[in-house]
Amino acid sequence: MRLSRYFLPILKETPKEAEIVSHRLMLRAGMVRQQSAGIYSWLPLGHKVLRKIERIVEEEQARAGAIQMLMPTIQSADLWRESGRYDAYGKEMLRITDRHERDMLYGPTNEEMITEIFRSYVRSYKDLPLNLYHIQWKFRDEVRPRFGVMRGREFLMKDAYSFDLDQDKAVESYNKMFVAYLRTYKRMGLTAIPMRAETGPIGGDLSHEFIVLADTGESEVYCHADYLTKPVPGADVDFDSDLSGIVKDWTSHYAATEDVVDKAAFEAEVPEEKRIVARGIEVGQTFYFGTKYSEPLGAKVATSEGTEVPVHMGSYGVGVSRLLGALIEANHDDDGIIWPKSVAPFHVGLINMRPGDDLTDPACEDLYAKLEAAGIEVLYDDTDNRAGAKFATMDLIGLPYQVVAGPRGLKEGQLEVKNRATGEKEMLTPEATLNKLVAALTD
Amino acid sequence: MRLSRYFLPILKETPKEAEIVSHRLMLRAGMVRQQSAGIYSWLPLGHKVLRKIERIVEEEQARAGAIQMLMPTIQSADLWRESGRYDAYGKEMLRITDRHERDMLYGPTNEEMITEIFRSYVRSYKDLPLNLYHIQWKFRDEVRPRFGVMRGREFLMKDAYSFDLDQDKAVESYNKMFVAYLRTYKRMGLTAIPMRAETGPIGGDLSHEFIVLADTGESEVYCHADYLTKPVPGADVDFDSDLSGIVKDWTSHYAATEDVVDKAAFEAEVPEEKRIVARGIEVGQTFYFGTKYSEPLGAKVATSEGTEVPVHMGSYGVGVSRLLGALIEANHDDDGIIWPKSVAPFHVGLINMRPGDDLTDPACEDLYAKLEAAGIEVLYDDTDNRAGAKFATMDLIGLPYQVVAGPRGLKEGQLEVKNRATGEKEMLTPEATLNKLVAALTD
Repeated sequence: MRLSRYFLPILKETPKEAEIVSHRLMLRAGMVRQQSAGIYSWLPLGHKVLRKIERIVEEEQARAGAIQMLMPTIQSADLWRESGRYDAYGKEMLRITDRHERDMLYGPTNEEMITEIFRSYVRSYKDLPLNLYHIQWKFRDEVRPRFGVMRGREFLMKDAYSFDLDQDKAVESYNKMFVAYLRTYKRMGLTAIPMRAETGPIGGDLSHEFIVLADTGESEVYCHADYLTKPVPGADVDFDSDLSGIVKDWTSHYAATEDVVDKAAFEAEVPEEKRIVARGIEVGQTFYFGTKYSEPLGAKVATSEGTEVPVHMGSYGVGVSRLLGALIEANHDDDGIIWPKSVAPFHVGLINMRPGDDLTDPACEDLYAKLEAAGIEVLYDDTDNRAGAKFATMDLIGLPYQVVAGPRGLKEGQLEVKNRATGEKEMLTPEATLNKLVAALTD
Repeated sequence: MRLSRYFLPILKETPKEAEIVSHRLMLRAGMVRQQSAGIYSWLPLGHKVLRKIERIVEEEQARAGAIQMLMPTIQSADLWRESGRYDAYGKEMLRITDRHERDMLYGPTNEEMITEIFRSYVRSYKDLPLNLYHIQWKFRDEVRPRFGVMRGREFLMKDAYSFDLDQDKAVESYNKMFVAYLRTYKRMGLTAIPMRAETGPIGGDLSHEFIVLADTGESEVYCHADYLTKPVPGADVDFDSDLSGIVKDWTSHYAATEDVVDKAAFEAEVPEEKRIVARGIEVGQTFYFGTKYSEPLGAKVATSEGTEVPVHMGSYGVGVSRLLGALIEANHDDDGIIWPKSVAPFHVGLINMRPGDDLTDPACEDLYAKLEAAGIEVLYDDTDNRAGAKFATMDLIGLPYQVVAGPRGLKEGQLEVKNRATGEKEMLTPEATLNKLVAALTD
């Protein structure tokens, strides 16, 4: 993409309303624009990252056997009356009356609707297990939206719903999502720690929050330091095999949020030098809730003996839009964002120091074409902006590599290649530049 | 995808509420489920087609230089008060009051919001031309939603917005979208004819509706038969070149919807044997509307002389979700849907006639693995369903090719390969089957 044809509205001033670094950087880097309190437009650079996060989530959901579909944003209130949540949900639910005076709502989550879909089509244990998911915009009318996309009102969530014949089978489905989540966050360059979570009024259920450590996290967390170095299952993990060993390993040490922490247990279980007390950002949650929705909504299946039983369900959320905030909280320095390769909006920023020059123009065009042909996404700064502004913009938007093509360097036949994360710079021939970037950026 | 692990809820009965064939087939094939009047869930098969349509739209928008972003579904009423449309829009606008009693709405379109974004960042003619688009759910509270996804309330639309310094430049942007639309529909296997459209109260403006001919179309259309055979620009079309010749060619013959038709002109301009009077489905619209929104909203840019002028705008819509209906209206027979290759949810339906059999199982597994490795998407029916039901399902869901692996054929070392569109069947060795499908289905 040529910057001269792109839409990258960089802000020079740090917006006053932004309280945390990810919000400041997303606004300054022209990634999002607030349209109303807690409601954002995703400008082209932000949209590209959002899509890359979605792709990783989709790939790992598919690997774990979940099937993608899409439910609408607007739901009928009647469904929520069946589950009893219409009155219970409170003011966070955005309630709507349509032109025929029917009560509707903007879905804050989809347990009711997916259960309605299940009960409409599925009758037999033979059709289980089933795991259906979608990635759709949700709305929660937070009383005080803040922290940019981290706590917005309109937000993008992946929510999956599993259906099983009994609790044992449901735990197998739970384990698949648990392992998929470990892989999903790892692929984005994040270490997400599964922590014991509140399961609500239904006792005995199973739930974990996946938490990324960050100074600006919304809650305090208590965990064992070994979680930070524990290896995550590779792409060859067999989701048809017994995954309980992996889940056991990943839940063997203490890890809990402030809502549920038992400090005495934390200190008893974790040696002092391994104790981490830090702030954390929740980026996902897995939840087995049994027949909480299938009972009131009448979602039953026939067993092999012919009796009818309510189906056992779980739900599994990933905060797709909030992950942009979490990723930036975990990956930035004073100059701007430092994107992990897998979610970077472009891989390389190519700076032409003197557009119109006999040396820099052909060198840039040639490298641009060759990188794009190799499947590497390049943002090519072909503008007349000042050199200082060009460098600052590239540092701010945080692409993994920068290549600077200047007349002086090219007289010596060299380009400058900078690694954004380490700051390391080297002078390389155009051919060596191409080879280095292809090796570093393709799998 | 193994059918035993998929979610494909086929309906045996034809649903009574469906008035047109595309709606009936989408319900029967388990592609969509109505959740409320005019509001649908996209079940896995329907969701796959929706995504393929989106990809084609995105690729052709990018080719034409439009830049993708994403605006939210919920908008502030204040913006619409600035343009004067808040009161003018009527009951089709879904109006919402949030917990702080602020007037909000579910966006039926985005002219106001994109103009607000433009005016917030762009100041100079140097940043033009600019064309920003998104693919987002919209809501129009139709008094009587009908025809399934063809006239739903919550629907997916691609809307692009161009910004130019003056009318001449705006027409260049218009022409790019016009050509992109010809290519977009053609890639889906549709012949969409650009027809003169109503431009509303502002005279002298430029607008075309892109119409697909179908017996169940919502309006009557009048056009020259040559449009049905006119070649569409290829992938090598240069969007930086002057496209006015292509647009002139594609608007040289008479073509108008019933809203604007001048029957005398139609008969004068079109020889009798070339006159087509038929029903049509609108699948897109291009619209140049000048400064209609930039004036009231104050979206101005500085010219090269330093004066400030309101920017000239156009908007360009593609009905992404309604295209599924239009595609099925144009591609079906008595047995079901016949998907064009480019938008088919899977390319091949592979039927194992006797799961558990020593011949059919390894033949199916081998072909399945090899087709998937070649990038061909296969729906592998590995279920115990009756043979008749398997055949009927495959015909109903309309994948371009079916492969039947039966014990008798395999004793002779042969599979049956059926072309869904032509009905042609042939017996081929597994190797010849693979070669045939790879040749037919990869580019």
